[in-house]
Amino acid sequence: MKALKERILKDGYVLTEEVLKVDSFLNHQIDARLMYKMGEEFRIRFAKKPITKIVTIEASGIAIATLAALTFNVPVVFAKKTQSRNLDKETYTYPVFSFTKQETYDIHISKKYLNKDDQILIIDDFLANGQAVEGLINLIEQAGASLAGVGIVIEKGFQNGGKELRAKGIHVESLAIVDRMKDGEIRFL
Amino acid sequence: MKALKERILKDGYVLTEEVLKVDSFLNHQIDARLMYKMGEEFRIRFAKKPITKIVTIEASGIAIATLAALTFNVPVVFAKKTQSRNLDKETYTYPVFSFTKQETYDIHISKKYLNKDDQILIIDDFLANGQAVEGLINLIEQAGASLAGVGIVIEKGFQNGGKELRAKGIHVESLAIVDRMKDGEIRFL
Repeated sequence: MKALKERILKDGYVLTEEVLKVDSFLNHQIDARLMYKMGEEFRIRFAKKPITKIVTIEASGIAIATLAALTFNVPVVFAKKTQSRNLDKETYTYPVFSFTKQETYDIHISKKYLNKDDQILIIDDFLANGQAVEGLINLIEQAGASLAGVGIVIEKGFQNGGKELRAKGIHVESLAIVDRMKDGEIRFL
Repeated sequence: MKALKERILKDGYVLTEEVLKVDSFLNHQIDARLMYKMGEEFRIRFAKKPITKIVTIEASGIAIATLAALTFNVPVVFAKKTQSRNLDKETYTYPVFSFTKQETYDIHISKKYLNKDDQILIIDDFLANGQAVEGLINLIEQAGASLAGVGIVIEKGFQNGGKELRAKGIHVESLAIVDRMKDGEIRFL
């Protein structure tokens, strides 16, 4: 997606060869107009799928997933990373390892909000090793729901998450795939 | 806001006299269309203020704050509850006590995203004791920015957060104020 790639080149910052900082418009400060355009782009790319629900994971996936849900006119559910006092006791749960935070945490979705008739589109801001998406897919499988596809804002093409999902036959759409980050330069696939 | 109050009566669930569950449309599963309408309502209620930025706190404030930001055409910044490896070292930080989780955690916003010229609108999904909003106001004060107001989806009128903010002369707009929850019945102010 051209507008996104231009924005990454303009405002993204290569912190290391593996870490791209885009917190000025994507995951700390958020450009809501750009998010809406990305939501519309997902709508176009998954137009042939009968999506009934969007699923993401807190916290930084919520903004793009909610704007995508607005364009698809379906509800969005976000998996929680903590078992809050107010969350239902009956949840689908799965452990996810975060490379960024170097820790494992359980993700939870109430059983009320994933049904076997659902056609789910997973949306997230980043795809690197794919741990978060694998966790969400597991919750969807526990519910007996169908996975319609995975929509990602920025995929790190030099890590394995995207390759592994596509190898399983999953329809993955990434709005920007970063192929290499070296000497502060960002190269797209 | 009529559509919100009707939805609370239809889908809200009184868990205890203090806990209202609205996770079917507000803070676990999200109705993006309703969120957008609420964003427009905030735009009307704060129309006279020259808002330059919306600030919220992860995780459940992000959806409504992003949709409000879309209607205001300004960026949104969400305060983070954890010091991630990828967050800037230079942050405004303040400790917040959560009654729901019965723990204190630090909230952080990168110094890059709050400026002294900013006119900030705080948006959050719930206002009860007001700890989260007080924490966000402190970050805004640290930055020397101005607070234009506070927009809340559901205020618990029987707790003190809203009263205390208004007593300080802060412009607070709550789309629904729950006055009492007893025997499973919800009464609005």
